Amino acid sequence: MSERVEFVLSCPLPITDYKNILLGHGSGGKLSADLIKKIFLSQFKNPYLGPLNDAAVFEVNGTRLAFTTDSYVVNPIFFPGGDIGKLAINGTINDLAVSGARPLYISAAFILEEGFPIENLWKIVLSMKSACEESGVLLVTGDTKVVDKGKGDKVFINTSGIGIVEKDIQISSDRARPGDKVILSGAIGLHGIAILSVREGLEFETQIISDTAPLTPLVMDMLSVSTKIHCMRDPTRGGIASALNEIASSSKVGIRIEENKIPIPREVQGACEMLGLDPLYVANEGKLIAIVDREDAECIVKKMKAHALGREAAVIGEVLDDHPGIVFMKTRIGSTRVVDMLTGEQLPRIC
Amino acid sequence: MSERVEFVLSCPLPITDYKNILLGHGSGGKLSADLIKKIFLSQFKNPYLGPLNDAAVFEVNGTRLAFTTDSYVVNPIFFPGGDIGKLAINGTINDLAVSGARPLYISAAFILEEGFPIENLWKIVLSMKSACEESGVLLVTGDTKVVDKGKGDKVFINTSGIGIVEKDIQISSDRARPGDKVILSGAIGLHGIAILSVREGLEFETQIISDTAPLTPLVMDMLSVSTKIHCMRDPTRGGIASALNEIASSSKVGIRIEENKIPIPREVQGACEMLGLDPLYVANEGKLIAIVDREDAECIVKKMKAHALGREAAVIGEVLDDHPGIVFMKTRIGSTRVVDMLTGEQLPRIC
Repeated sequence: MSERVEFVLSCPLPITDYKNILLGHGSGGKLSADLIKKIFLSQFKNPYLGPLNDAAVFEVNGTRLAFTTDSYVVNPIFFPGGDIGKLAINGTINDLAVSGARPLYISAAFILEEGFPIENLWKIVLSMKSACEESGVLLVTGDTKVVDKGKGDKVFINTSGIGIVEKDIQISSDRARPGDKVILSGAIGLHGIAILSVREGLEFETQIISDTAPLTPLVMDMLSVSTKIHCMRDPTRGGIASALNEIASSSKVGIRIEENKIPIPREVQGACEMLGLDPLYVANEGKLIAIVDREDAECIVKKMKAHALGREAAVIGEVLDDHPGIVFMKTRIGSTRVVDMLTGEQLPRIC
Repeated sequence: MSERVEFVLSCPLPITDYKNILLGHGSGGKLSADLIKKIFLSQFKNPYLGPLNDAAVFEVNGTRLAFTTDSYVVNPIFFPGGDIGKLAINGTINDLAVSGARPLYISAAFILEEGFPIENLWKIVLSMKSACEESGVLLVTGDTKVVDKGKGDKVFINTSGIGIVEKDIQISSDRARPGDKVILSGAIGLHGIAILSVREGLEFETQIISDTAPLTPLVMDMLSVSTKIHCMRDPTRGGIASALNEIASSSKVGIRIEENKIPIPREVQGACEMLGLDPLYVANEGKLIAIVDREDAECIVKKMKAHALGREAAVIGEVLDDHPGIVFMKTRIGSTRVVDMLTGEQLPRIC
């Protein structure tokens, strides 16, 4: 049997386009989803992993815990508004928060490239410390590995986190129901464009700053007025378009959003036009999307607006009972377009 | 103020030797310990991280949980006896096991290099699946990142794990007491030499195979006959010498071991002599060191010997009331030598 035929039999991915890993497999778009579904989900089937939420929620001795992991490979490691360390702490806190969990404990594992200046590591550690303190989480376990020069890129950080789900809530990407409202917490695209502006040496009238921030206080406020939050995601890699597509697909519902309800900062819009990017796909690091019962939408948005991170919160759309798995957008000029998952890679190494 | 002076003021490491990260900072030896203590522990002070155990143990709603993280950067990714995937699952399971915890849930985060063959990823995933099944743990959450070609090395895997501590035990590196016995579960050096033999193209009469294996069943058997296990470590990077030094240092005790009690396979001894390595510092991936109350030592060893992974278990030394922080070895010829932490890097990227 030829090597090629054997591979087809043993490996579930169609190999024509994907014999090797592409940058797009890390984009959070269609290639990522394919890889995760065919390679990982096909082997690790269990009720916790299946819905592909930002964290797994399970019960231990009657206590509901949330558990999440993320590796950070952002380039550059220092950027306006933060650095890889702050991002790693806030990102894992946010994955717990959007699962309805209060973050308790966090781990940090570093992969350092030989020759990396210890001074930079020190700056990153100070920034992680301050992010942990801001959110009241304890960094309780860690690991340090070093790889030879040219076999890594300065520093990669994995953070995993454990939180406790105290409310009687069920938040999961497969729980959106027709009639539910879609809430967005604020302006999109800031993190992605902040990273890109450094990487490409772009200059704007006002500097674009990453929105990296811990979402726990905002989420706890939302949960204090409603337990009918059905899905919640922080739209990082792949932006709000990918997060909504994942929800539409997991819940087998259609979702319609309205372009004129989505706050896009002028600088983000300008940078996107210049670079040929769609802000719906640009990463955010301090925003959330919530799919909530229509009856509670108004009081949730009102509560969010009282919070610094939710001042621009708004209902931006609703869940439909037809077109399962499809996200539509009513554009500013009144037409309707499909907002699909991205196939390739828009912005590599954004987080 | 010059850049150099500012750095001295802001960063606690003496910069003369260590301005940049060296391979030795990942060795598990003296440089690692220094980096961890000065950069990480100085900022993240809390009772869970302090003793530098293989896992942090804390209580949530009356349930004692263990939490651990490790990134795997082993090179090569496939080796006799296993691959990076099996190592990543078993390694994290073992960090929980030697904390007295039954592993429950595990996370997996992949950093893939652009161009990595998907077929190899598939093999690794199958091997992780089988390791999870062997230990009855569920992989419940994950992450996939891709870095540009030349900015990573094939695949790095982080696994974090959560376990439950069900027995009324207190296992921690700072709990060794004078008079305690030191138990080693079996022959040392197999993992490190297996990796090295592939990397250096060495050939032996019989192939040396990594000892990667899950230690949970062995540990649960030990705990079934004694709750007086004071410290337990799986001596991976840096070998049994580093694990014992960390215990001696955390517990502020001396430790004396006897060379003729330590099983060293003939091939490991031969390879070490040829390469100028000391087997005491070579990594193991399926062995444990336990410091136990002297009265229980015999029954623990007896129980261990009934287990496949503990057949060669033996008391190899004892804890002293003098020379705090120092590990001694009585050699085969009757002399005594200090077994210090390694300063540099003996075997980079061994796990």
